[in-house]
Amino acid sequence: MSSDNTFRILISTDNHVGYLEDDQIRGKDSFQSFEEVLILAKQHNVDFILLGGDLFHHSQPSLYCLREVMGLIRQHLFGDKPCEFNICSDQSINFPSRFQQGCNVYDPNLNISIPIFTIHGNHDDPVGQENLSAMDLLASVGCANYFGRSHDLNDIKVYPILMAKGDTKLALYGLGNVRDERLHHAWRDGSVSFIRPAGNRENEEEEEEEEAQQSQEWLDNAFNMFVLHQNRVRHGPTSYIPEEFLDEFLDLVLWGHEHDCRIDPEPCHGKDICQPGSSVATSLAEGEALPKHVGLLEITGKEYSLQKIRLSTVRPFQFTSIQLSQVNELRNAMGDTKACQRYLYSVVEDLIGRAEEEWGQQQGDDDDDEQQQQQQKSMPLPLIRIRVDYSGGFEAFNVVVFGKKFVSRVANPRDILKFYRQRSTNGTTTTRRQRQQEVLNDPTASIPERLDNIRVETLVDEILGKNLEVLPENEMQDVVQKLIDKDDKNAVSSFIKQSVLRMKRSVDGENRTSIDDLSEQFVKRRATELKEDRFDSYAREQTARNSRRSRRENDAVDEDNE
Amino acid sequence: MSSDNTFRILISTDNHVGYLEDDQIRGKDSFQSFEEVLILAKQHNVDFILLGGDLFHHSQPSLYCLREVMGLIRQHLFGDKPCEFNICSDQSINFPSRFQQGCNVYDPNLNISIPIFTIHGNHDDPVGQENLSAMDLLASVGCANYFGRSHDLNDIKVYPILMAKGDTKLALYGLGNVRDERLHHAWRDGSVSFIRPAGNRENEEEEEEEEAQQSQEWLDNAFNMFVLHQNRVRHGPTSYIPEEFLDEFLDLVLWGHEHDCRIDPEPCHGKDICQPGSSVATSLAEGEALPKHVGLLEITGKEYSLQKIRLSTVRPFQFTSIQLSQVNELRNAMGDTKACQRYLYSVVEDLIGRAEEEWGQQQGDDDDDEQQQQQQKSMPLPLIRIRVDYSGGFEAFNVVVFGKKFVSRVANPRDILKFYRQRSTNGTTTTRRQRQQEVLNDPTASIPERLDNIRVETLVDEILGKNLEVLPENEMQDVVQKLIDKDDKNAVSSFIKQSVLRMKRSVDGENRTSIDDLSEQFVKRRATELKEDRFDSYAREQTARNSRRSRRENDAVDEDNE
Repeated sequence: MSSDNTFRILISTDNHVGYLEDDQIRGKDSFQSFEEVLILAKQHNVDFILLGGDLFHHSQPSLYCLREVMGLIRQHLFGDKPCEFNICSDQSINFPSRFQQGCNVYDPNLNISIPIFTIHGNHDDPVGQENLSAMDLLASVGCANYFGRSHDLNDIKVYPILMAKGDTKLALYGLGNVRDERLHHAWRDGSVSFIRPAGNRENEEEEEEEEAQQSQEWLDNAFNMFVLHQNRVRHGPTSYIPEEFLDEFLDLVLWGHEHDCRIDPEPCHGKDICQPGSSVATSLAEGEALPKHVGLLEITGKEYSLQKIRLSTVRPFQFTSIQLSQVNELRNAMGDTKACQRYLYSVVEDLIGRAEEEWGQQQGDDDDDEQQQQQQKSMPLPLIRIRVDYSGGFEAFNVVVFGKKFVSRVANPRDILKFYRQRSTNGTTTTRRQRQQEVLNDPTASIPERLDNIRVETLVDEILGKNLEVLPENEMQDVVQKLIDKDDKNAVSSFIKQSVLRMKRSVDGENRTSIDDLSEQFVKRRATELKEDRFDSYAREQTARNSRRSRRENDAVDEDNE
Repeated sequence: MSSDNTFRILISTDNHVGYLEDDQIRGKDSFQSFEEVLILAKQHNVDFILLGGDLFHHSQPSLYCLREVMGLIRQHLFGDKPCEFNICSDQSINFPSRFQQGCNVYDPNLNISIPIFTIHGNHDDPVGQENLSAMDLLASVGCANYFGRSHDLNDIKVYPILMAKGDTKLALYGLGNVRDERLHHAWRDGSVSFIRPAGNRENEEEEEEEEAQQSQEWLDNAFNMFVLHQNRVRHGPTSYIPEEFLDEFLDLVLWGHEHDCRIDPEPCHGKDICQPGSSVATSLAEGEALPKHVGLLEITGKEYSLQKIRLSTVRPFQFTSIQLSQVNELRNAMGDTKACQRYLYSVVEDLIGRAEEEWGQQQGDDDDDEQQQQQQKSMPLPLIRIRVDYSGGFEAFNVVVFGKKFVSRVANPRDILKFYRQRSTNGTTTTRRQRQQEVLNDPTASIPERLDNIRVETLVDEILGKNLEVLPENEMQDVVQKLIDKDDKNAVSSFIKQSVLRMKRSVDGENRTSIDDLSEQFVKRRATELKEDRFDSYAREQTARNSRRSRRENDAVDEDNE
């Protein structure tokens, strides 16, 4: 039951809407779960939805994806429900996005029943002209309230949205994704500060001291919440944000970006951390196989409670690891690929069975809650992933052919199996880079495994050769990373455009007049274009490898953590 | 003064928002003029805005472009002004776009002061997944009412929006762009029909006849208007829509697509045709140099009047043609490039002067209207285009170097001059194709002129060779055309993706199991990718040549018409 002093907030993160939107089987998954989040918000009569970034999977979402998201928001979150909280901070600071003009619930021309507050993630972060995020677009039409964008990365000031509902005061801090290394350094160097503002005051002259005192009192009584979108797991010395960086005055942290659902709040250095995880599996890593939830957060005074709600639209995903050399029935079948396949077929069958069983249970649970509304909802094709350690003399085989047996029974028949081999370290410590090089050069390793271990840097060198007078190599690394991380298809072309423009300018700068010189210019440009070709071919390979790679990296992270 | 029986409609078309949005000088032009249209609608207190297609220049507009358009619409057209007309046709037929759910003025959650009604043009026509137009996106958030989309091109039924304001009845028919040849044939074959519906009736049983009679009466008293977006000028035997195709029951036709402003209604076969033209010059053709207007249309009963309003944000554009051999002072200067340049410098100066003069006059006119509000508005850099006929022994020279003199005085210094030569036809009729071939092979022609005359088909053959087992050549023509017409950067890649997918499927179809076969597959795919490279390189060249080409074609059209 909602009370006048209790904020009711639906929390969710990493909805990755648009993920695999062209896939015939899984194309609608991300949209369905996003819609479920909106419907849950309505059903639970929340004051607002708080998202932790990566609402969109692509930084430049397709027309289809934008249409769906905006249309669904308009369908479910517009309406007559009155807004029961006030915002008392300076909204022009909270929501600086052009055309936003304050929180959408206050727009007299829009009838918003449940507003969305969101930061950007690393997938939908600002790109392109005027450095816009897809969140800016949502904000411009009143579909969401975009906050937490930092414009000076050398001096990051996190300014809260101050909200009041009855006696409960909420200071909502947010910080959209910043490259982890950069934010890590900034934080360590003391360049990240949480502002504790005085609320809406225009006149700073005389009343300043009194107001400051009042504002201090307000803040002392407020529940302090922070939402961020960064690596929580250590990926390297500085490519994550250590939990202890987060200031102790915070009461609750909503952690976006990590896809594993760890939604039950975990106490940590005087505050609690809640990590809802993604609402759609964007990789077949073990962490994505955990049941996916959103949270119903209730805040009264300085206390909160969190009820987790399992998403019912999520496609079942079963994950397991197998070490072939430890399987009894394969003890003497090292060269016998057929026997291995038979065994793995049976594992897949078991996993499909397990998926069905859990689906049935889940439907049963839902029935209790919702009076058998969804009783007969049949299970969508499940995702199945088996990590197969084939070390010890076993042979890898074609996983696509293997998967054909399950084409109409599994959502991902082409990549059910993932072969890998444990490498002996010979007592010495090998870096990941060395290990990768080793796998790449190992003629007995499976081809997909070897391809997965090609290093980006090596490829760039190999494909582009050393003739990089047009495309600066150091910048290229950044661009390729962007391409991989964010599926930003324009990153390469816009980078090349810029580089070529730079080159053209330098060519134009010389004083040419004759037609001969003109043709020379054309030849030069053509040479540039040829280089672009080679780069584009490389970029395309990377894009194609993109999904595989991101999965691998997620797997690698799991490995590191295990 | 608005009366209760008078529809007041602001008409505009081909706003091409997003055109050259990356250009440092001209990047904001299309946005400014679009905003001016919205502001004029407000100032003149219209009932609605009617757009004739190509609101967007790109079929998949950038985030920036979408943000601006949606934000500007929200800023200027949302508000408390009550809607003074009724819609009495079946809105689910009028506006079938998902999430639209009827005209936006009736959405209880939106406060729309001036609705936009629009069809799609050839630039923002439906593409990609689920075949969506950017108009669908606008419709999904209530920023526009998208109508006139035909789903069966073999049986095109144009269903009107029936509106009533006081005693005035308006039947608004619309047809979004269809490929001209296709529509021409459909129309000729009688497959295009204008529906005269009975309005909102649910119960078709007994009252049918009576209602049909009433509806007939309604329609007989209605003002019939039709908006389309097609070639009006003959570009080939069937690649245009002859004016006489349009049914005589129509009172007024709003013709989109053609960029020349011919907004004063022209009587034609019993109806009037009004062609507002574009609000931004997307080519440097002569027709784009005409003053640009929108119209304030007033309809009372069966009568209408149209007041044209000159757009004040449009960048000045001066166009002229020069035949060097007819210039007195160059009579003996055929080999003297410097003399030609000096002469052309003076022509540019004259044109800049003329632009300033006209700007001053225009400002003066505005002052009269608006009490010197804009008095001191200084002229933006003008567009200047000189078509230079250098036949008769003159030499072309580097136009980029020529333009440097005007870098800070002209908006398009790189392409002020356009060289061409009149070809002698030797008494025989030459086709345009033959003429092009001639220019291409003429070693004395200027390089840009020769490049402009390369034929797409020839290039495709040349670059891809004959090894087209992966990329079907006939489909490729269509794709390239799409790329050129609509600047649809995804056309090529999505075409290639489909083709490669098709190939992969046929490869996967075979029953392969060994690792050897697997590597063979990889090699094949790599081969495919290499072919993609070559195609992409070609596509990029085309894109780069795109703007030049479209200008050329526009010029060619002007030539044909002259």
